[in-house]
Amino acid sequence: METELKTVDTLRRPVRGAQAPPSLQNEPTHATSNRQVASSSSAIVYCEGNFAKIDGKTANGLVRHSEAYRILSVIDSTYGGRDSGLVLDDVTNDIPIFGGLEAAVAHESFIPDALIYGMAPSTGRLSPADRNVVLEAVGLGMNIVSGLHEYLSDDSEIANAASERNVTIRDIRKPKLSKDMRLFDGSVRGVKALRIAILGTDCAIGKRTTATVLARALNAKGIKTVLVGTGQTGLMQGAKYGVAMDAVPPQFGCGELEGAIVAASEAEHPDVILIEGQGALSHPAFCTSAFILRGSQPDAVILQHAPKRPHRCDFPSMPMPTPESEIVLIEVFADTKVIGVTLNHERMTDAEITGTIKAQSHKLGLPVTDALSRPAAHLLDMVVAAFPGLKQGSPMAAI
Amino acid sequence: METELKTVDTLRRPVRGAQAPPSLQNEPTHATSNRQVASSSSAIVYCEGNFAKIDGKTANGLVRHSEAYRILSVIDSTYGGRDSGLVLDDVTNDIPIFGGLEAAVAHESFIPDALIYGMAPSTGRLSPADRNVVLEAVGLGMNIVSGLHEYLSDDSEIANAASERNVTIRDIRKPKLSKDMRLFDGSVRGVKALRIAILGTDCAIGKRTTATVLARALNAKGIKTVLVGTGQTGLMQGAKYGVAMDAVPPQFGCGELEGAIVAASEAEHPDVILIEGQGALSHPAFCTSAFILRGSQPDAVILQHAPKRPHRCDFPSMPMPTPESEIVLIEVFADTKVIGVTLNHERMTDAEITGTIKAQSHKLGLPVTDALSRPAAHLLDMVVAAFPGLKQGSPMAAI
Repeated sequence: METELKTVDTLRRPVRGAQAPPSLQNEPTHATSNRQVASSSSAIVYCEGNFAKIDGKTANGLVRHSEAYRILSVIDSTYGGRDSGLVLDDVTNDIPIFGGLEAAVAHESFIPDALIYGMAPSTGRLSPADRNVVLEAVGLGMNIVSGLHEYLSDDSEIANAASERNVTIRDIRKPKLSKDMRLFDGSVRGVKALRIAILGTDCAIGKRTTATVLARALNAKGIKTVLVGTGQTGLMQGAKYGVAMDAVPPQFGCGELEGAIVAASEAEHPDVILIEGQGALSHPAFCTSAFILRGSQPDAVILQHAPKRPHRCDFPSMPMPTPESEIVLIEVFADTKVIGVTLNHERMTDAEITGTIKAQSHKLGLPVTDALSRPAAHLLDMVVAAFPGLKQGSPMAAI
Repeated sequence: METELKTVDTLRRPVRGAQAPPSLQNEPTHATSNRQVASSSSAIVYCEGNFAKIDGKTANGLVRHSEAYRILSVIDSTYGGRDSGLVLDDVTNDIPIFGGLEAAVAHESFIPDALIYGMAPSTGRLSPADRNVVLEAVGLGMNIVSGLHEYLSDDSEIANAASERNVTIRDIRKPKLSKDMRLFDGSVRGVKALRIAILGTDCAIGKRTTATVLARALNAKGIKTVLVGTGQTGLMQGAKYGVAMDAVPPQFGCGELEGAIVAASEAEHPDVILIEGQGALSHPAFCTSAFILRGSQPDAVILQHAPKRPHRCDFPSMPMPTPESEIVLIEVFADTKVIGVTLNHERMTDAEITGTIKAQSHKLGLPVTDALSRPAAHLLDMVVAAFPGLKQGSPMAAI
């Protein structure tokens, strides 16, 4: 993609508190000191044993795209000495992988600003080995960024070490105080932008990636688009609007997302707001998409699916749903329509992708594409076909 | 009802932490001192301006039924000097209402053990006037019990006062530490008891009340039944199993409820487990029922509906759903079946209740009753009609 998200250049109306990217933080709400990280913060991403795997999705996302941090390197001894782009996407990105923190820091001429804990294990917890690396980084004077459910700023050993070294701990998932959270009030219905939610049939299936590609393509066409993040990776990457839904008490889940969408609308006046989905509406364990559909009241949904995935990620006993069943579920659950399906091509050859796109389009009666292996124009066509009034210079969609 | 819930007398396997009733707490996890409240704790319920109203549902529930606390009186100056049972249900219950804390305490020959904050405002927050009453109670040496989203134990003024007076603060909604929470793993499918979820078409519509009446009726028939609570009122009333779903991060919502059901199954070996619903699956703001359906994987659902309610509680702009639309939604969302509808008879005459039961039974093709104004045997029949194998001495249901 040659075009950066245009939203980066426009007026900033920051997400506040721990979930804000470092350049937007007014004060480090959950930090152990008042030291600010600069807007061009440099970071090493820790992903031991998990890089390029599903549980390394935070690291995978950050080496592909990061607005908030300048990613220097990745730590994963499995791939020590290799290029992270080559390992992940077969394309060099000049972000090297090191076997440990010491080697990663030795490679730089300065102490990097931050260590980002780049794994999202389904347990959401820190292992003892990981703890040592975090403490080592703190000892070197690095700030810590974590998307774990276990708040590192509440861990007395880590918090005390951070305090002694005068570094900050940013727990992406730590919610605001409940008195600062809002209830759903229906104001999202007054938002003029077309709202499209990118949902999926499983966790870690590429919803955020497809949303990012689509946002770029729409902005490149002059259709002003803002992506509202709902997970820790998107927020670490620097999404200006959003909330880590998994960390918000259910009472406020719909309302906090609505608030982020209304804020994006008021500050940016976009034509389109894309909303990142989480988990799957059908998922027995992770159905945050219920709150995402209620809180965003989307005009349309794009469904991301991995045809060759044998079972739900991390749950071998739970079969994957079909796109058909997920579409029925979404359209009964919410007053919206699924306008297309996007593929995650894991375990598929190029010929299989082509065959699946053709077969599924026919079967579902909907456009189908793959955001990564097929031209972004196909994804753009999917949206414009559903909303023909949506074109450059014509901000209001004919729905 | 002449029969107490049998589960009270059997082996206790406590809910731990702040959500446990006082008699079951091993340690006051979120308390400011180590002082224990006795199992027959006496309590005054604070419900200024809200008793017998929807936002006073915690107080309303406690004067109707309380296993964990002996309720002495209610505070609400609107009804000072009246009997709370008469105000609420036209039946004397000998729990008086006072205009203020001073009068309520003066009525007793001792300082009561606890002040229960008995309101559940949709904002979940403490007003400045309420704060003074809480501080006054602490000053008298009373423990505080609260279901607010704003944790009183995190409020420095209240926490300091409690510490000085050596009293405890029990925040019902304060979740466990995330490292102590569990993910959904499907083990609920191995539970032998028949699982019935009591869902509804709105908040504060009588789901818990219907579940309580049904649990009593089943137990009275020798069908051993355990009620798993999912809200702060049920947990304050002394539900042995359950979790305040609204306070659990979505990542763990399904898993924590599953854990409570599995614990109830293992400790009690019941024939039936009833699961209290929350909000409504269709509710734009409160759809915690999504997690309840996923986490409990119920064999059946009973749907509570208020035919005369003009709009969603607290949301004048949101119309009520029909029972038909809610049933379709529930049965598409989860692999379960709705076996009957129960009425909340607010704003209805007895003749209207009779007419509605007849008309809705015909329209829906399902049994319909009212748990409060009609014999509990009707409710029992609804369940036995759906599961004919479920009868006294025959614990396994023929589904």
